[in-house]
Formats: sequence, C-alpha cells, structure tokens
Amino acid sequence: MENTDDSLTLHTDLYQINMAETYWADNIHERKAVFDLYFRKLPFGNGYAVFAGLERVIEFVKNFKFSDSDIRYLAEQGYREDFLDYLRTVRFTGSIKSMQEGEIVFGNEPLLRVEAGLVEAQLIETALLNIINYQTLIATKASRIKQIAKNHMLMEFGTRRAQEMDAAIWGTRAAFIGGFQATSNVRAGKLFGIPIAGTHAHAMVQAYQDEYTAFMKYAERHKNCVFLVDTYDTLKSGVPNAIRVAKELGDRINFLGIRLDSGDLAYLSKKARKMLDEAGFTEAKIFASNDLDEHTIFSLHSQDAKIDVYGVGTKLITAFDQPALGAVYKLVAIENEHGEMEDTIKISGNPEKVTTPGVKKVYRIINTTNHRSEGDYITLEDEDPSKENKIKMFHPVHTYISKFVTKFQAVNLHHEIFQNGKLVYETPSLVELQAYAEKQLQLLWNEYKRPINPEEYPVDLSIKTWENKMRKIEEVRKKIK
Amino acid sequence: MENTDDSLTLHTDLYQINMAETYWADNIHERKAVFDLYFRKLPFGNGYAVFAGLERVIEFVKNFKFSDSDIRYLAEQGYREDFLDYLRTVRFTGSIKSMQEGEIVFGNEPLLRVEAGLVEAQLIETALLNIINYQTLIATKASRIKQIAKNHMLMEFGTRRAQEMDAAIWGTRAAFIGGFQATSNVRAGKLFGIPIAGTHAHAMVQAYQDEYTAFMKYAERHKNCVFLVDTYDTLKSGVPNAIRVAKELGDRINFLGIRLDSGDLAYLSKKARKMLDEAGFTEAKIFASNDLDEHTIFSLHSQDAKIDVYGVGTKLITAFDQPALGAVYKLVAIENEHGEMEDTIKISGNPEKVTTPGVKKVYRIINTTNHRSEGDYITLEDEDPSKENKIKMFHPVHTYISKFVTKFQAVNLHHEIFQNGKLVYETPSLVELQAYAEKQLQLLWNEYKRPINPEEYPVDLSIKTWENKMRKIEEVRKKIK
Repeated sequence: MENTDDSLTLHTDLYQINMAETYWADNIHERKAVFDLYFRKLPFGNGYAVFAGLERVIEFVKNFKFSDSDIRYLAEQGYREDFLDYLRTVRFTGSIKSMQEGEIVFGNEPLLRVEAGLVEAQLIETALLNIINYQTLIATKASRIKQIAKNHMLMEFGTRRAQEMDAAIWGTRAAFIGGFQATSNVRAGKLFGIPIAGTHAHAMVQAYQDEYTAFMKYAERHKNCVFLVDTYDTLKSGVPNAIRVAKELGDRINFLGIRLDSGDLAYLSKKARKMLDEAGFTEAKIFASNDLDEHTIFSLHSQDAKIDVYGVGTKLITAFDQPALGAVYKLVAIENEHGEMEDTIKISGNPEKVTTPGVKKVYRIINTTNHRSEGDYITLEDEDPSKENKIKMFHPVHTYISKFVTKFQAVNLHHEIFQNGKLVYETPSLVELQAYAEKQLQLLWNEYKRPINPEEYPVDLSIKTWENKMRKIEEVRKKIK
Repeated sequence: MENTDDSLTLHTDLYQINMAETYWADNIHERKAVFDLYFRKLPFGNGYAVFAGLERVIEFVKNFKFSDSDIRYLAEQGYREDFLDYLRTVRFTGSIKSMQEGEIVFGNEPLLRVEAGLVEAQLIETALLNIINYQTLIATKASRIKQIAKNHMLMEFGTRRAQEMDAAIWGTRAAFIGGFQATSNVRAGKLFGIPIAGTHAHAMVQAYQDEYTAFMKYAERHKNCVFLVDTYDTLKSGVPNAIRVAKELGDRINFLGIRLDSGDLAYLSKKARKMLDEAGFTEAKIFASNDLDEHTIFSLHSQDAKIDVYGVGTKLITAFDQPALGAVYKLVAIENEHGEMEDTIKISGNPEKVTTPGVKKVYRIINTTNHRSEGDYITLEDEDPSKENKIKMFHPVHTYISKFVTKFQAVNLHHEIFQNGKLVYETPSLVELQAYAEKQLQLLWNEYKRPINPEEYPVDLSIKTWENKMRKIEEVRKKIK
C-alpha cells in the first residue's frame, strides 16, 4: 500500500471521472443539476428507517479536493493534462439540503438533495451513497432492536465482526442515534463521546487458570465489576465465584453484576438471578451477549429471562439479515442550453424504479388534533402546504387510496447544510440526535412501528408533483416510439 | 467529531484495556502468552476460505502506539496516571506467524499465531479480528463467485453499498485476491494498483436528455467505449443507439461493447448479442450488472445468456448471504509464575467451542503421487511431520474416520511476520497473491470446491495435539467438580 496522503476524493466510481471529463470537454460541467438521494424499500421489513451519515458526508464534502497524488494517479491512468488541470480546481461549491440525522424516514422520499454544477454533484455521489447507505441501515437496525428491548439497556459490542474499521466506528455512532447507550469500541468513545463499556474476557480467566483468582485480581484494580462467568461452567463455577468475590470484598468494590456469553441464556439467567438474590445481591445486574438481535431478545422476553442489559454484536453492526440498503442518487432536474431548469426522468422496466422528476421538498403532515403524523408529502419546490387549509393525500401508485387532511401542521424535513459551498449547518450532539429520533418516533402510530408486518406509512406526492411525473413519462414514451 | 490524530490504537474493545490494567497492576503483563486466531465454520456453505487481511494487520501492528490524545481520552475515563504512563511505553515487541494472504484455509486451524507479552497480545486482538474477519470473508466470496464465473471477467462494483469506506477499499482488495480482475473504486486503484473500470451512468444519458447525443459526447473524449443501454429502453433505444454511434465513428473509437444494468439479463443479452452481431460488431462485449452473485451467474449460464463480463456489487462487497465471519482469538498457552509455558483451554457447553491447547503449527499434507492435498495437519510446536515416513490422519471428533498417509510432502503454512517486534515479512504483490490463491486451489479435489454441498476437507490434529487436548479437558473437569 503506497502511503501517499489521506485524500478521500478518489473514493468514487471510475465512471464519475469519465462523465466529468465528458461534461468538461463539452463545456456543460457547470450546468446546474439537482440530484435526489433516496432508497426505495425499507430494510428488515421494518416500517420506518432512521437517517444517519450526514456528519461524515459533511466532512467528506468539506474536504473535497483532489490531492497531488490523486492527480498523479489519474495522469498515470491516461487522463489528459488539460482535464487534470481542471480537476485540480474542483471544490464543492453547490448546495445540499438534507434530513437531519435521527430523522424517521421512508422509501421514495429525498433524504438529501444536491444542487450543484453537474461535475461537482456527480463526483460526490459514490461517497455519499456509501456513507448514508451503511449508517442509515445500522441506525435503523438499532432502533428496531430498541423497539423490542424497550427499557433494557443496549450496548454495541460488534467491532470484531464489523466489516472493517470504518464500519465499526461509524456503525456504533449510528447505533447510538438509533437508541443504543454504550459501545465497547474505545476509539468510537474517543471520537464521538459515546459512553464505553466492558470489563474482561475469557482470556483473563484462562491467564490466571483459576476463575476465583482472576475475579479477585480484576477487582483489586477496578472498582466497578462485572464478571464474565462462562469460561468453565456458568452455574457450577462462574456465578459461585462471582458471588464469593463480591461477598469477600463487600464495599471495597461496586459489584455491578455478571455477564453471560454462551449457553441457554433464558435458563442460565433465571438460575443465576436466583443465586444472586439468595446471596443478597438483588441489585446486581445480569448482562447477556451472544449473537443477539431483535428476534432473540423478543424470545428471551417471552421466556421471562432475567436479563437486564443486552450486548449486541454481529447482528447489529453488520445488519446481518440485510447487510445493504439500496439508496440511489438520481438526476431530477438539469439546466438546459438556454439556462432554464428542466426536469428529468429515468424510465425503467421495473415500475418502482421510475424516478420522480423535479426539484422537491418533503413535508411531514402532523395532525394537530392527535399529534400523530398523517404521512409524508412530497411537493415541488414552489409549493407550500403549510399555507393550505386542506390537502389531498393519495397513494402515488394506487391513487384511489386517498384522504383529505385539514387540521394539520406541515413540517419541512429538509435542513440547509451547504449553501453555495459554504457549510451553514451545525450538527447537534449525539445525545440530541438520539433524543430527536426518539421524539420523532412518537409521531408515528404503533402500527407503523411494530417489527413484524407493520402498516405502510404514506409517502405521497402532491397533485402537482404527480402530474409532472405523468407528463414526463408520456414525453419519454413518445420519444422512444 | 473531534479531529485529533489518526491513531488506530484505541480501535479495541474496552475490556482489553481493563485486562491490561489488571495484568499490569499484578505485574504479569510481560508474561509470554500465545494466542491462536481462527474461525470455526466456513462461510456461505463453501468448502474452503481464502485468507486475507494480513497487509492491514501488519500496518496496524507496526504503528501500534497510544497517541497523546489516546492517553488523554483514557485519563478522562478515570484510568490512573501510573497505568497510563505504562501504556505510553507499550509497542508490539512480540512475534506473529501467519498464513499468507491468498492461502486456502479451513475451520479450526490457526490462521495467525501471536506470541507476545500478555498485554501486547491482548491489546491487538480486536483490530486483528475486525480486519481478518472481513477481508477473509470477501476474498472467500469472490473466490466462490469465480468458481462459477470461470473465465468470464469479474469486476467489483460495490462501493456505494459497502459498509462504509474501509470496507469498500479493503473489500475490493480482498476480492482481487479471490480472483476478481478490476474495481470501479478509483481510490482502491490508487492505493493498491488494482485495475480500474467504468464508463458512464444513467445520469449522463439523462443530462443530455437524448441517448444518441450522450453516447456521441462520451465517445468524443473517450477512445474506449462501453455504452450503458438501459436508461430508457434497452432493445428499442439503448442498443440501437450504441450501434449507431459505433458505426458512425468507426475506427475513431474502440467500441468495447454495451452494459446491461436492469431487466431480464438472460433475454436481453441474447437479443443484444444478435443485434450487435448483425451490425457486424461480433467482437463487442456484453457487460452485465444488477445484484449479481454466484447464484444468478450460475442461472445466467444455464440459460445460455450471452454475457462476457460481470460487474458484481452489493452481494460481494457485503457478503450479503453471510455478512460476518466468526473468527476468534484464543489463549492457548501462557507462561506461569516459574517462567514455564503452560497450555490453556477454554471449555464450553458447545463442544465445537472447546479450544485446542498448545503452541501449534499447521501443515498441508500433499500427496506426492497425485499432487493433491490429503488434508491439513495440526501439530504441536516440537513436531515435524516432514521427518516422518507415515502419519495417521484422523477426524478430531469422529476419531474412527482415519487414514495413514505415506508418500507425502508436509508444507508448513505459517510464515514469520514479526519476530520480537521486528517486521521480517515482505508482502507479495497483489497479482502474486491472486496467482497464489489460484495455485493453492489446484491442490484441492473438485469435491471440496463445488459451491453447493462440498465435501468436508480434513483438518486433523496430530496424535500428540489430540492427546494434549483430552488431558487438558480432564484437568478442567476435575477442577470444576
């Protein structure tokens, strides 16, 4: 690995560079283009997703600049000097609007909107998708687990199984936004201020070759003690040794509890609870880990397992049951040769892949009587539903499914992030983002939040947006004929 | 995100730090410990795995050192000054033996062996697992796809769906080791010298709002042309426009072919092939992408699809059907208070989770008559099967399954990587690693390589290793009673 510099600007697909060259050679590289970033289908069969990734997107866009070694590499690939001279000058000078992290989001609504010169907008596409796809996926998985775990504390333990280092740290940040309270990854703690958690591993018990000694040695140096009890035999050795040490040391330590990491967690937790209670440690908590996810936690609850804190690893950090979110980045409008904006569409044999043309906004329509959301409502840029008394909300495919909404508040979900290249947004703290996600979830009826077979939350188009789309489809169909 | 420094040393689980403190306070932190890194179960139901990740492991270990901001962060977490003063001095001064990247590997054999002071060995665990788990998973998935795709060229196209940035670039490197020939990620090309590939996206066709114009504009600046033909309608618009441009420009471009990215790839490729052939472009290739993996490629082949080159994205870069490999890092021997090495074991209720104690080596036993592998053979450090005339190979659980092997060559699969903290290994080029994987695969009978229901490749213990394990199990069982 040639250790050159830390530029991330080449973190893009090659075709973006080739398109940039085409546009630049044709002198249309500065034409204004508008791209929507959105996914079509919610992951995990969930009824909603939790948006995350904006913080890293901001860092990427702010630092966007081809380094000398980037340019040198492209020269070696045969790109010509005149084009490379141009690339050297490229910075992001456009505008970005975006949902804030922690926003509850749905399919087919623009999570983020880029308005910039054609080349700038295109060159940042790949990184934006890479970042937002993963982080939104993990925030959503975390929130889904939280729906089941309810008030039980959740800790992210997945670093060793994460898909490389960035996933470990940005994944744990996303999990925090989705409702997790701590991480085992110390670097994530340092970078993001997430509370860190962890005590000792099996190896420590093996290193002392005697469980009692190992627990004692740990307790000598650490006031707060959680003992891992399954190195040899949970109920015959681990729990009795933990209790023995806790009794012998009394107030000299803060015996927080024990951790189960293998075997039948439901059975072991009930037995261990009984042993702890009988020894007088009714406040000691039982921590559990071992391939947990929303399904195993649901099952543990239904078996009345006595677990207080869950450590969730692999299944969360890799989004094991669906390890990719399919967000896309589509051109919805472009400046024509006369300097006017024109809406664009991409047709597809798969009807759900047809794009929605035009510069758009997303409003959440909140019923002011019951304070629940009626759905999301996508409008064209010049519409403002908050000035209407009544709006018609209808399903964008099955249009007969419709309703009129009257007493409502229309909240524009997009925040200004960059304006003409200038960062105008300040990221709230992680704790604020977590609280925001929690608060926004309260706008949703429970029917949208249940982990299995949730109701479909309405994401509707305004009449104007819908008609514009139909018109564009017709235009393309005529052209093909 | 507090942008402090680029230290990765805190990329570890908190319990490693707490154990380090325990060992240091108890003055056993420099006791020599031996850890094995291995996985238990092959991923994807495959019959083998392809080892990858060593290059990044070397970088991590070489640069292991707590930075000032790392220490400051730990101080804020309440760690005491005396311990932090010690941590400041910690470097990796131990030894590492490892399989080389591209090695064909199996469950329950040490892929990598760390011998170091207890604290040093423990502090690098999490990062080593994080790196090797992911990269080995992707190299294996790539090799599995290659088994099906055979001589068709394979390109890695997954950046936008990868689990954050590191996964995109290290994943594409692992895919190359496993048999892929190119990537769309320009940064991966720059960092690792992987050939880069890509032409244009749908957005370019939309930007010109006319497919013919878009292709022409692209061709004006790029000699090598692959046209993406499914923006509006593959057979009615895309392929005819590609042919028209290729005919009009003739020798002025190098018309490499077309790319299909949606719809029925089998049907469309056959129709498109016919159209290209009839237009005289019999050499033009058909590239295809859209959620491909070994299963869809197998299906396309069985339908006699006319696809020459596959672009594989999501399913490869996320290892979609099994996004985590479960490699673990287990203490197998430790120095006791008398300065002697003692083997250690971890017992578990799950029999497959019982560790194999002792300092071990892995030999590949190659039959010198047919040049195929008889299996892998794990020995204790002081054994050398290459000096034996005859070895008994038996299944470590179902011991009655056994054979004697006589005419064989025993190849030690471990390479010296670090010796007493010094890097003594030079990583071969990526092309060499890819060729090595290919060559090592030739040692395996096809029965081990078929993607569905492969035979189980023997990973056996020498008699001495097996007896040592049984003795240790007995010792622990007595102790628990």
